[in-house]
Amino acid sequence: MIWPAAMNEHRTIPAPAALIADMGARARAAAAIVAQAPTTVKSAALRHAAIALRESKDAILAANAEDMARGSANGLSPALLDRLKLDAERIEGIAGALESVASLPDPIGEIIDSSTPPNGLELSRVRIPLGVIGIIYESRPNVTADAGALCLMSGNAAILRGGSEAIESNRAIHRCLVTGLQKAGLPGDAVQLVPTTDREAVGAMLRANGLIDIIVPRGGKGLVARVQDEARVPVLAHLDGICHTYVHAAAEPEMARNIVVNAKMRRTGICGAMETLLVDANFPDPASLVTALIDAGCEIRGDAAVQKLDDRVIAAQPADWDTEYLEPIASVAIVAGMEEALAHIARHSSGHTDVIVTDDPEAADRFLASVDSAIVMHNASSQFADGGEFGLGAEIGISTGRLHARGPVALEGLTTYKWIARGKGTVRG
Amino acid sequence: MIWPAAMNEHRTIPAPAALIADMGARARAAAAIVAQAPTTVKSAALRHAAIALRESKDAILAANAEDMARGSANGLSPALLDRLKLDAERIEGIAGALESVASLPDPIGEIIDSSTPPNGLELSRVRIPLGVIGIIYESRPNVTADAGALCLMSGNAAILRGGSEAIESNRAIHRCLVTGLQKAGLPGDAVQLVPTTDREAVGAMLRANGLIDIIVPRGGKGLVARVQDEARVPVLAHLDGICHTYVHAAAEPEMARNIVVNAKMRRTGICGAMETLLVDANFPDPASLVTALIDAGCEIRGDAAVQKLDDRVIAAQPADWDTEYLEPIASVAIVAGMEEALAHIARHSSGHTDVIVTDDPEAADRFLASVDSAIVMHNASSQFADGGEFGLGAEIGISTGRLHARGPVALEGLTTYKWIARGKGTVRG
Repeated sequence: MIWPAAMNEHRTIPAPAALIADMGARARAAAAIVAQAPTTVKSAALRHAAIALRESKDAILAANAEDMARGSANGLSPALLDRLKLDAERIEGIAGALESVASLPDPIGEIIDSSTPPNGLELSRVRIPLGVIGIIYESRPNVTADAGALCLMSGNAAILRGGSEAIESNRAIHRCLVTGLQKAGLPGDAVQLVPTTDREAVGAMLRANGLIDIIVPRGGKGLVARVQDEARVPVLAHLDGICHTYVHAAAEPEMARNIVVNAKMRRTGICGAMETLLVDANFPDPASLVTALIDAGCEIRGDAAVQKLDDRVIAAQPADWDTEYLEPIASVAIVAGMEEALAHIARHSSGHTDVIVTDDPEAADRFLASVDSAIVMHNASSQFADGGEFGLGAEIGISTGRLHARGPVALEGLTTYKWIARGKGTVRG
Repeated sequence: MIWPAAMNEHRTIPAPAALIADMGARARAAAAIVAQAPTTVKSAALRHAAIALRESKDAILAANAEDMARGSANGLSPALLDRLKLDAERIEGIAGALESVASLPDPIGEIIDSSTPPNGLELSRVRIPLGVIGIIYESRPNVTADAGALCLMSGNAAILRGGSEAIESNRAIHRCLVTGLQKAGLPGDAVQLVPTTDREAVGAMLRANGLIDIIVPRGGKGLVARVQDEARVPVLAHLDGICHTYVHAAAEPEMARNIVVNAKMRRTGICGAMETLLVDANFPDPASLVTALIDAGCEIRGDAAVQKLDDRVIAAQPADWDTEYLEPIASVAIVAGMEEALAHIARHSSGHTDVIVTDDPEAADRFLASVDSAIVMHNASSQFADGGEFGLGAEIGISTGRLHARGPVALEGLTTYKWIARGKGTVRG
């Protein structure tokens, strides 16, 4: 469904439930076509879209200027306005990301495994697209291109619902995706943008069981919580990234300091940032970790033992152990040993990424086996928790759920499989 | 949680929500232990359970006699009473099934893939258990052992909720599972049986988000529909098995006849039984298919063209194309060609198993690629849709959902994975 840019507020958009039902039906039809599109055709669509983006730079900037002006008038925060803002460099970044997704290995058609059981059937499991993916996101317009590209490259149709503050920017970028699809001979309905900013459209997507196969929310905790709470469609997401680093007794002190400071301070606003540091009571130099963090500009909220290490430490409150700060603040506790560290993580981790620093391989193995999080690391910074860093080439999101896909999710996580059985007139005895 | 058999109706069982919360917490604790149990220990638990079953034969038969007597008094149908009934042979079958699951390859710990991206991390995805599996089933007491065994062998804890009519039989079988667990040094809480027949306990399980990771309903359509409708926990199931066989123009007539009769009549009550036959208008001998089915005892409900083939054909009503008979009844339509067959299946298939019979390899490939069902077959009977026949060694169920696991699900479908990243003090630049 292409909504011409010329349409304005007076256009007739159906009520949200009917709108999503119609978009879902069109998406399902388009999904059947893109599911069988060769890799070269899907790649071509994304490369054409990148060309269209570059050619439409002025129109995109104009649309973005509208959003920015409305955002300023509505009093959006500087941080939100920065996420919303596009410039020539950011548009080039979006185009480059489309080309990068176009070059990723195509998961569709992969034979996951095959066998010939005694009944003589030739059996295989073949990777196929999930179907229709719903993406619900906030102010960053680049998600329109990124998410649409990942869905298409994995053979899926996408229904995109961006933030109302970015609607004109999203429309302008979306037009380029549709141009790319059409130039490659694929249906424009394969990547649709919800044309209304009515919040009820989100509700309609969340209830669109059978029309949308999976919902991926991209944004702040408020959005993810609403989606997880209301959705009747399966959701691929993480609510919190309360990531722990456990500095074991046998950790090398300088390595521990480097990892801890990087895990917290490299970028504090990402979900893989460390929020809680657990220091083993037998680690030789706990004060150096706390001091290094404070010297790097981090506020430390510590338990009683940590407060003795540096007089700049603030007393932690119980809620601190369950808080994702996303700021230069960390909670720090001294733990008696591995047992207490594992218990703390089991109780407070959000299941995203948890790290042990140690030179003792047995302690590392025990931690990696016992901690039940999507990502567990040894002697590394939790800031690596990212699809790009994990070699996936991109990321639609990080999932802390247990089903289907866990941790960073890119193309493979947007697929499923079917069983193919070939017989020779084979009947069951 | 072990509820001694001696407890009777006067025992104190908490209200359903509190009961399930308590069982869930115990299951979670047990799951952490069985998740890390070596294969040999899990196998030993199942072999000990098989021994306990054989040794407890008289007690199980006595418990089953109670259920049968109560069932007869309550007017259960002969079919239900047959499903409920245990005898020496059936108990031996249950014990053998436990031993068979004990011999299956253990999926836990499998390294799904590994890589070393440019950042230097050593990355791998390792298969781990899902966690806590809820099984909700009806009258067959053998499900207590089968489902409990599959959950345990895949490193999961199980919460079993069988039909109230089988409660004494289930308790007796469950005691043997707990004996097996304990003899192997595993927590008895790893396989728990809901001790109450209060239907509200099912509702509490369905809402036990965070306590139970996935629900597998085993039983009739009413049960599955209720579970799918009410569950806030993910559900692995199929509602219907409306399986199609499309006899293409280029099908070999004798092969087509054999497959069609087998697919419908071998066992009519299983989900993989054919319910609808689509015959290509260019298939040379459509009457032979219809006649063979009728001669085998099948009632045929056909469209106008089919009614002309044999005067025993009954006129199909619109609802017939969406009906899972599970009886010796089939709906039959003549279709103009592949296009119409695909459209009929897209509209009416339940996404379980659909089959093409043809000697034309291109037609076969097109059908296998286009039909969006969990299982697609070429020149074979849909009655093969079964975990055992697919070489999985067992089956917890068949899923027509698109996420996580599709088609027959055994041990692998009860697992997920975690990412393990090993660094050398690796920090992100």
